[in-house]
Amino acid sequence: MPSYLSMDKSSLREEYKRLSEVYAEYKAKGLSLNMARGKPGSEQVSLSNDMLDIVTSKTDFKTDDNPDVRNYGGLDGIIEAKRLFAEILDVSPENIFVGGNSSLNMMFDTIGCLMENGAGGEPWNKQGKIKFLCPVPGYDRHFGVTEYYGIEMINIPMDKNGPDMDMVEELVQNDPSVKGIWCIPKYSNPQGITYSDETVRRFAALKPAAKDFRIMWDNAYVIHDISDTPDKLLNIFDELEKNGNEDMVFEFASTSKITFPGAGIAAVAASKNNLELLKKRYTFQTIGYDKINMLRHTMYFKNLDGVLEHMKKHKNILKPKFDLVISMLESELSEYGIIDWIKPNGGYFVSVNVFKGTAKRVVQLCKEAGVVLTGAGATYPYGNDPDDSNIRVAPTYPPLDELKIAMEIFCLSTKMAAVEKLM
Amino acid sequence: MPSYLSMDKSSLREEYKRLSEVYAEYKAKGLSLNMARGKPGSEQVSLSNDMLDIVTSKTDFKTDDNPDVRNYGGLDGIIEAKRLFAEILDVSPENIFVGGNSSLNMMFDTIGCLMENGAGGEPWNKQGKIKFLCPVPGYDRHFGVTEYYGIEMINIPMDKNGPDMDMVEELVQNDPSVKGIWCIPKYSNPQGITYSDETVRRFAALKPAAKDFRIMWDNAYVIHDISDTPDKLLNIFDELEKNGNEDMVFEFASTSKITFPGAGIAAVAASKNNLELLKKRYTFQTIGYDKINMLRHTMYFKNLDGVLEHMKKHKNILKPKFDLVISMLESELSEYGIIDWIKPNGGYFVSVNVFKGTAKRVVQLCKEAGVVLTGAGATYPYGNDPDDSNIRVAPTYPPLDELKIAMEIFCLSTKMAAVEKLM
Repeated sequence: MPSYLSMDKSSLREEYKRLSEVYAEYKAKGLSLNMARGKPGSEQVSLSNDMLDIVTSKTDFKTDDNPDVRNYGGLDGIIEAKRLFAEILDVSPENIFVGGNSSLNMMFDTIGCLMENGAGGEPWNKQGKIKFLCPVPGYDRHFGVTEYYGIEMINIPMDKNGPDMDMVEELVQNDPSVKGIWCIPKYSNPQGITYSDETVRRFAALKPAAKDFRIMWDNAYVIHDISDTPDKLLNIFDELEKNGNEDMVFEFASTSKITFPGAGIAAVAASKNNLELLKKRYTFQTIGYDKINMLRHTMYFKNLDGVLEHMKKHKNILKPKFDLVISMLESELSEYGIIDWIKPNGGYFVSVNVFKGTAKRVVQLCKEAGVVLTGAGATYPYGNDPDDSNIRVAPTYPPLDELKIAMEIFCLSTKMAAVEKLM
Repeated sequence: MPSYLSMDKSSLREEYKRLSEVYAEYKAKGLSLNMARGKPGSEQVSLSNDMLDIVTSKTDFKTDDNPDVRNYGGLDGIIEAKRLFAEILDVSPENIFVGGNSSLNMMFDTIGCLMENGAGGEPWNKQGKIKFLCPVPGYDRHFGVTEYYGIEMINIPMDKNGPDMDMVEELVQNDPSVKGIWCIPKYSNPQGITYSDETVRRFAALKPAAKDFRIMWDNAYVIHDISDTPDKLLNIFDELEKNGNEDMVFEFASTSKITFPGAGIAAVAASKNNLELLKKRYTFQTIGYDKINMLRHTMYFKNLDGVLEHMKKHKNILKPKFDLVISMLESELSEYGIIDWIKPNGGYFVSVNVFKGTAKRVVQLCKEAGVVLTGAGATYPYGNDPDDSNIRVAPTYPPLDELKIAMEIFCLSTKMAAVEKLM
């Protein structure tokens, strides 16, 4: 079969008829499948079930820095949890604040803190129009937080090395209204790109026009490999130190996709100054987070090795799913010249650029055949993908057999939408 | 011994000498005791240890409205937890949003939501100077949240029926910059006062000048009795309904002082409109809270009866502590005419008004003898008690024997400070 791009109208009409017949058969099945959210599958969450047997009525509730985790006290978490996140993020425990069950919530609180207290200068919400850089495609919930706080978003294109650093430097170093940037530096959502060493170094060496510029370094997939040749990310704090720029970054992580989404623990890593800044807000917001759940995690994993052993089990479940998605994209779609994608070594997504101007239509066709995808445009600020092309495929939640059918429908819909456009 | 108020200078000097000698003996002991925070004692938190054996690797993680509490989903909590809080607060489950581990955090988020989104009108942070009414003495963390958001605080005197409702009505119904009031309607912090039916009815019938006026009804001690003749609080939502005023109140509660402080669950009860308002923020802030911990609580308690049985055990531990404090205030201090206090039927505190102008000095004397009290002034907005008189005694945390010594030092310090002032 030749590329659709080289077909004449009559061949395209013939192809469309053929595809429509297959599509009708799928539609008749009345399926209900979901490839929308970056959600671990049931088999994955079961991997951590044993953790629920760890803390019992007989547990010693005293930790190295807390007299009783069952009672109030310890705004920034127990030392054992700080040590665990410090190992995961390769920083020092005194640079860790362990929070609640959600790193998203910690990012929301951090932006809130900067809006209300600023970072050295005026509070961000007293500075008129401010801007954030948003590498695209990116994570819809980052964009949601930014939009919630009324911060203007500027798209920064991604390439295989990360965000376009020429553009980042140009904007950050010349425009004092640019206050921050969202980064998912390892296995980016949705493309699975890991920032190159050069990219990390250029970030660390930024000389922002705004003294209160901050990088939101969301290391959500720091140890979430799905390949035997995982990516390596340079430690941003090491590079920041070389530039005397330690206050420029807030780094986030959580165990949501290690243990239980919603019942894990989350943390921020930051300089002493930045932690003090955050505590200016947290001290009014709460007395402290769930230390019993922190203890549950640290007793279960003990240390980074324990976590990494656990992540291998996730990888064993996820690798076949990602392999299936990639092999189907190759076998079903590559010959038609209508899409491109990136094969990730980790993370939770496969980012597919379908034929320009058809992403919304692909999502609609999938939906009508019973397959829910992330909304087209969701990977762009304001839900606006200028090319209407990017779709975030999330292969982790459905079981392998369901994923196969969902991908068949996705590939079919992708072809139909492209042919419709070309006819 | 006659009242200090009727003593001549020389008798006062003699008394002071005598007190100072006893004080020196206590000081020499090098004690370290704490009556500062409303923190359950170790024996109390141990009451809930069995709850930690309830959710295990073998648990059925499906609930009536959630396919798997171990995974993402369910922004406002599981239905079982909504039902439990609905029973506790005597409202309908659809009026409950179950959040994280802290009702204080939910209050902070609620004020944040109103600042940023408003309640029908302009966002509060776009309306220039706005004000909150603060019944005094009151809870320092309420005042902290208000101050954090830059809201001006106005003191409202408390009497045995609750806040001065004439003053509340006058301010709320005439000043559109008055946007809210903090209430702890049952066993108020620190006085242990329960609002009278008349007070609740007058609150429910308010006709605020500001359409976006909201009552923060912090029902922190809703079932926290320490007496065999507990107080009864009228259900505010029933009264609001009679006045068509359902949108005027956010009610808060948590299990922090039922199960584990910091590892409990918290909730807000509100009208449909108000819950929608809150979700405008929560939907950006988080994907959801810890549903495993919600399940742990609901499996453990089953229903309100289970919670009430549990609260009896707390009462059995707390009643002797409160009885001790009250009996010592009576036996050690009542004859001198220098203090007054209220005997509470529940809650976590005994509010003591020491001799006018000596609260700071009493706290200092206690501290120097090894007894930490809540800072003088903490029970007033901006830490400013105009009479320098109110001290919040928190008898729950120390064991009974330590409490006795701490109270001996408190009574002694109270007398010394009064005599110093009178000499």
